Amino acid sequence: MVLKIYGNRFSISTRLVATVCEEYKIPYELTSLNLLFKEHKKEEYLKHHPYGVVPYIDDDGFVLYEIRAIARYIATKYRKNAAVPLFPDPITESEKYAKYEQAASAETAYWDKYASNVAQDLVTLPSFGFGVDPSYAQKRLQNLYASLDVYETVLSKQKYIAGDEFSLIDIFHLPYGTLLTSHKILNLLDEDKRPNVARWWKDISALPSWNRVQVQVPDSWP
Amino acid sequence: MVLKIYGNRFSISTRLVATVCEEYKIPYELTSLNLLFKEHKKEEYLKHHPYGVVPYIDDDGFVLYEIRAIARYIATKYRKNAAVPLFPDPITESEKYAKYEQAASAETAYWDKYASNVAQDLVTLPSFGFGVDPSYAQKRLQNLYASLDVYETVLSKQKYIAGDEFSLIDIFHLPYGTLLTSHKILNLLDEDKRPNVARWWKDISALPSWNRVQVQVPDSWP
Repeated sequence: MVLKIYGNRFSISTRLVATVCEEYKIPYELTSLNLLFKEHKKEEYLKHHPYGVVPYIDDDGFVLYEIRAIARYIATKYRKNAAVPLFPDPITESEKYAKYEQAASAETAYWDKYASNVAQDLVTLPSFGFGVDPSYAQKRLQNLYASLDVYETVLSKQKYIAGDEFSLIDIFHLPYGTLLTSHKILNLLDEDKRPNVARWWKDISALPSWNRVQVQVPDSWP
Repeated sequence: MVLKIYGNRFSISTRLVATVCEEYKIPYELTSLNLLFKEHKKEEYLKHHPYGVVPYIDDDGFVLYEIRAIARYIATKYRKNAAVPLFPDPITESEKYAKYEQAASAETAYWDKYASNVAQDLVTLPSFGFGVDPSYAQKRLQNLYASLDVYETVLSKQKYIAGDEFSLIDIFHLPYGTLLTSHKILNLLDEDKRPNVARWWKDISALPSWNRVQVQVPDSWP
């Protein structure tokens, strides 16, 4: 049975899950919910995802939410499908796996946390006609810059964020990275300021599966 | 060689790592840094932990930071040491592992994020003589209550946060849960309000290893 994604075609989290499915060559079908009608807050949805955010997946009856958990699940269950390993074997590659989890934890704590704040202040709220105090927004943007300064240090010693191999953790940066660069809020390609971040972002943002998902996420695909 | 923890004896994150070492019966040695002297921001420390927060570990030359990554590393490398499995085998127990990661991701997104805000507003800042706008603090506390309402739903269907077995993910809740209950900011034992959260908290907060670590974390232990 085809893996089902219950999300929204414009949601960056939904697109991340679709990208991971593509990387592991898993056929999937997207059911796009109407978020303005709050379909993700209705009882039927909350039965499967008690926090009421998109997306969740149904893999032949196995239901799972939280995008980073979904990615790890796909990476361990379908690991042989991938063209290149995107996640090490946690048991046999203990130290490599530990470095992956270190990068994953840093991604949530120092990237996603601040990037989501900035997206809220400067993309989402303005799109609904709301605004925030510019000095508050600026302060929150500074947190993200501070994280990127550490990223510059980390990436001066290794090619990708979890080591010298491209991994799921790099992919986790694509949603907010793409959103904030497309709105010209963040310039991740500034070679003068952060040359290693620029090199890394140029590389990972070219990921074909991610870019295919940006163009179109149809209801049933591929 | 004994596993070394570079942290601080009063830091709840350091205590979490010590607890995980205890659960997996790993002898460890704590080097307690002086945070007021900003020893964790000095060049020597930043070489090992570029984000400059405590703790990091050195396991016979293998250096790792981020407490949730450290916990997973110990759980996979030393899995045979534990009295009860606290983390499933990611490869052979794919779906169980996925549910663990789902709970882990929810813990960072809906518990730790809000609990750390509340701790900052109502414990850390006041302890240094600073305060925040009470209405702002109250608003941030409401986010935590909303998460606990979902926890109540989740825990009405299963014994622990990742399923019917006690796991690392339960342990991840102990630092902020203990801090906020000891300061009487949160009453996780309120049976009238959230009976399943109360049952769960009563159970997990009795963990002997965690309680031993609360009493005393000496420089060299055990």
